[in-house]
Amino acid sequence: MEQTNPSSKRVGIVGLGLIGGSLGLDLQRLGWKVHGLTKRSKTAHRAKERGLAQEISTNPNILAQCELVILALPLAQLLVPPTELIDALPKAAVITDVGSVKAPVMSVWNSLHPKFVPSHPMAGTTAAGVDAGQENLFTGQTWVATPDLQTDPLALQKVADLATSLGSKWITTKAELHDEAVALISHLPVLIGAALLKTLEKEDNPSLQALAKAVASSGFADTTRVGGGNPALGTAMMANNTSAILRALNAYQCNLDIFRKIIINENWQGLLEEFTKSQAHRPEFLKEPNDFTN
Amino acid sequence: MEQTNPSSKRVGIVGLGLIGGSLGLDLQRLGWKVHGLTKRSKTAHRAKERGLAQEISTNPNILAQCELVILALPLAQLLVPPTELIDALPKAAVITDVGSVKAPVMSVWNSLHPKFVPSHPMAGTTAAGVDAGQENLFTGQTWVATPDLQTDPLALQKVADLATSLGSKWITTKAELHDEAVALISHLPVLIGAALLKTLEKEDNPSLQALAKAVASSGFADTTRVGGGNPALGTAMMANNTSAILRALNAYQCNLDIFRKIIINENWQGLLEEFTKSQAHRPEFLKEPNDFTN
Repeated sequence: MEQTNPSSKRVGIVGLGLIGGSLGLDLQRLGWKVHGLTKRSKTAHRAKERGLAQEISTNPNILAQCELVILALPLAQLLVPPTELIDALPKAAVITDVGSVKAPVMSVWNSLHPKFVPSHPMAGTTAAGVDAGQENLFTGQTWVATPDLQTDPLALQKVADLATSLGSKWITTKAELHDEAVALISHLPVLIGAALLKTLEKEDNPSLQALAKAVASSGFADTTRVGGGNPALGTAMMANNTSAILRALNAYQCNLDIFRKIIINENWQGLLEEFTKSQAHRPEFLKEPNDFTN
Repeated sequence: MEQTNPSSKRVGIVGLGLIGGSLGLDLQRLGWKVHGLTKRSKTAHRAKERGLAQEISTNPNILAQCELVILALPLAQLLVPPTELIDALPKAAVITDVGSVKAPVMSVWNSLHPKFVPSHPMAGTTAAGVDAGQENLFTGQTWVATPDLQTDPLALQKVADLATSLGSKWITTKAELHDEAVALISHLPVLIGAALLKTLEKEDNPSLQALAKAVASSGFADTTRVGGGNPALGTAMMANNTSAILRALNAYQCNLDIFRKIIINENWQGLLEEFTKSQAHRPEFLKEPNDFTN
């Protein structure tokens, strides 16, 4: 274990996958002393090689001196946290998470720690695991918190400062509204892309399937990026935000059917108007003003 | 007009939008003398400023000395070509197009020119117009030709040489199979993304819509990139490949409904298996081996 600088602020990161590893890289650069906790010693070894934190261990006691702990765990683990982890969290520390569905996380964690702040950085790639973490993942992205009456205001401010120091745009909203919004813009796209991949997978003309693979271009790659992402993450989204996702999916299926009817009726002027509205509407959802030209 | 080098090979490009402009930039670099034809003098002026071709005119006679002419026109214009254009095409030249649906293009052009080669580079961005052309758009992409018994073999070879010189991977197939394949991997993704944008557009809770805009991240941007693209291009795809698209859409709607039922039944193990198959399947459709990690 390297010598520590006792004046450094200490942050604990539980889980050093895509989000945890990226946080570790950025927070060290910002002057934090980062303590990383992983489940397996093999992961700890690789995380040390990659320099994801200054101190890395499989023993939850590594969190003992941290003033802030980020639970960068998969949603499923976040909802059934191990007792050793709960016991190891310093009572004075601020605890936050990165779970993409907030209401179920809050129903578990609000009662487990007095300074728990439910939050969620809107950033990700299809990569996962200890090799996935990368620098500047959060720059320019939104970081949402969903405080309720139980949330400690000073703890909330501390997480806000952390998010903004990483270059994220900080917003707060209600958990239920957050979960409806991510169902529409994050979870529904997973289903949409996965169903497209499934359609190609089930195509039973082998010549057509082979040609489709040969001619598939960036449009197909982009449309299926999140749908072909981490299966456990996708399943956890669906299992923990089920009713909001089913509402979003139902609306989506209706709109897709409207397009089908326009095409069957060969109403090309109507379709042109719909596509023109879609094109005009899309930039409102983009963070970088130039994104729609790429 | 700059002085021409009579020894240069001359290529004509009809239309200097995304595809035509990109071809103009690359082909000049490869030593071709590029003659660009545009409809409007304003476009010709801008194309000259951007250096998209050495010779640019609104007069079809600019194609007179070209040994190869690429019809880089929108599908709708390609299917109803103006008489002046047809008359201006040198009889000895090889003619090819870039239309994304091949059967209707062939039914028009096979009878208009003896050396017509139906082809289609699988490359694109959401950008359009005279400012959209960019270098190296075709590198590493597939370029498909759909010759039939009428296609001149030497003309076909000339287009193959052109495509490979641009760094594209050349393949030939039957027009009908091509049109089925692009319905699945190129045209269906347009509908899928546009329907997602429409779902957000029609959301009638203003707080939810505003939050969705704030939290939308790269996953939403990617899933909707082609669905929020050029409306005229999208409409032309649907209008000219209607039956293949309706078959693809029908299969897609069935698969989406299978997902809906799995979710309603809370069959999370089944969903995990489906997502795992999607993730495993996707890289087969990607050109760059690393693409799935981004």
